[in-house]
Amino acid sequence: MSIIVLGTVALDSVKTPFGERKELLGGSAAHFSMAARLFTKVNLIAIVGKDFPKQHVVFLKSQGINLSSLIMESGRTFRWEGEYKGDLNSALTINTELGVLSAFKPQVTDAQRKIENIFLANVDPDIQEHFLRKMHSPKLVGLDSMNYWINTKRKSLIRLLKLVDIYVANDQESRDLSGESNLIKAAKRLSSFGPKMVLIKKGEHGVLFYSRSLQGSSGLVFSLPAYPVERVVDPTGAGDTFAGGFMGYLAKSGKINAAVIKKALAYGTVAASFNVEDFGLDRTRKLVLGDLEKRLIKFKDCFVF
Amino acid sequence: MSIIVLGTVALDSVKTPFGERKELLGGSAAHFSMAARLFTKVNLIAIVGKDFPKQHVVFLKSQGINLSSLIMESGRTFRWEGEYKGDLNSALTINTELGVLSAFKPQVTDAQRKIENIFLANVDPDIQEHFLRKMHSPKLVGLDSMNYWINTKRKSLIRLLKLVDIYVANDQESRDLSGESNLIKAAKRLSSFGPKMVLIKKGEHGVLFYSRSLQGSSGLVFSLPAYPVERVVDPTGAGDTFAGGFMGYLAKSGKINAAVIKKALAYGTVAASFNVEDFGLDRTRKLVLGDLEKRLIKFKDCFVF
Repeated sequence: MSIIVLGTVALDSVKTPFGERKELLGGSAAHFSMAARLFTKVNLIAIVGKDFPKQHVVFLKSQGINLSSLIMESGRTFRWEGEYKGDLNSALTINTELGVLSAFKPQVTDAQRKIENIFLANVDPDIQEHFLRKMHSPKLVGLDSMNYWINTKRKSLIRLLKLVDIYVANDQESRDLSGESNLIKAAKRLSSFGPKMVLIKKGEHGVLFYSRSLQGSSGLVFSLPAYPVERVVDPTGAGDTFAGGFMGYLAKSGKINAAVIKKALAYGTVAASFNVEDFGLDRTRKLVLGDLEKRLIKFKDCFVF
Repeated sequence: MSIIVLGTVALDSVKTPFGERKELLGGSAAHFSMAARLFTKVNLIAIVGKDFPKQHVVFLKSQGINLSSLIMESGRTFRWEGEYKGDLNSALTINTELGVLSAFKPQVTDAQRKIENIFLANVDPDIQEHFLRKMHSPKLVGLDSMNYWINTKRKSLIRLLKLVDIYVANDQESRDLSGESNLIKAAKRLSSFGPKMVLIKKGEHGVLFYSRSLQGSSGLVFSLPAYPVERVVDPTGAGDTFAGGFMGYLAKSGKINAAVIKKALAYGTVAASFNVEDFGLDRTRKLVLGDLEKRLIKFKDCFVF
């Protein structure tokens, strides 16, 4: 079953202890798609400017990603510039240039409206809701957001949470939006806002997953460590890559149960571990499903007692 | 095979979001022993003052802990007072009263000198070395320390590292002592100082284990999440409880291989998860091995895909 992702396609400039790169192909929807494509047909909904390099369009298409609703508008492509220091756990944003993103009105073809698996990667929650309401038969809807929207569009975000099945957030966002410092409590509170499932990304510390509906009344908690990566070159897009692997596997499976969720979390984890090993999409562009499978075995070996 | 632990027995006063307790039985050796006793005979090496409540001695003995080398000296028992806020991940020390600990010269009986499994819980590294050199046939030696000694007795600690098999540290201590921010690199660097195995405790994020000798030349990395605990009442002693479960299981097993290490890490993890559910030793004093076994199954269910 195919999947549709709404998000950003960006030109990222990053500086890390391993070097500096200018205007790399990036953005939440691009990173998501590069992992999800390993499992299913991906439809990408985003906007770029007229300055967007053609080679990136050619590349994304070559990955089997459907770009029929990628808008190309007059103006500049969304750009992000950031730097990572020390343990590379958090980015310092140096500059953000919204460009055409500031007037983004997602388009979607009639055929795409029927897609049942939907991921709303990080953009303005009002745009996310607007897009979601265009979709005819949402079956599994995932949502990502970020602190900026939690602070500036909290009401929109809370309203949107009622419409989604899975809310994906990092640990700080989870704490901020829920008001709870214990992450299990935070997940439960966030779930009470709407989504049956909550997935908290903890960077180098892995993920925590909560579902209130999969098992009994007390809910179900899964906790996976990150795949241990010694040489983290550029963590940009790791969370979106994780979401792409996770949602891609769920879309392919076509069903949700504890075993499928755990496998999806594991696929997301190893997909993200590849993403951080090189700049931008440099590692994930070479990735095939067999690479994930091999690392999955090593990953399991890291902790299964 | 029995185990001997050198460390502190203390009177802890703590304040957490769940309440306040005065002069609880605590200390690194006490927390360690309460978990290790579930697996093997424990010998405790520590010092207390004449003010140390007799009921605590009676209690520790009732747990099968050998106290023949527990020194009772004129003066006050070591006291620690701390507070936890927010996510309870780190303690704020309000007061430390060394008392008799400042003149601690560990004693050990001739019979105890023959014990092969040794854990040097957190005290002055010079005292740790002095004690270790008294032991006749160390086979498996674990070492814990803390930031205070890393900063004030770095040379002693580095010298001591050459004599031990397993170094146990939290993430911040690992980074400080190794100068590496990536935890796998930190573990490798610490291992190059001496210990074949390095265990990094990450609190609510679980543990990272590295061994340079268990598998191939690139070494072996294990990563376990913490057992998800929603109601963390008092995390004091969680790290020592972890070490007690871990070392206790290794001592019982009598051998070291990848499977044994992973099982030991899992036992340590669930032992620590019980410890944080109540103040001081209130939860671990009621603990039987069957409780660990049951939680081990739930724990495995949290992530095995």
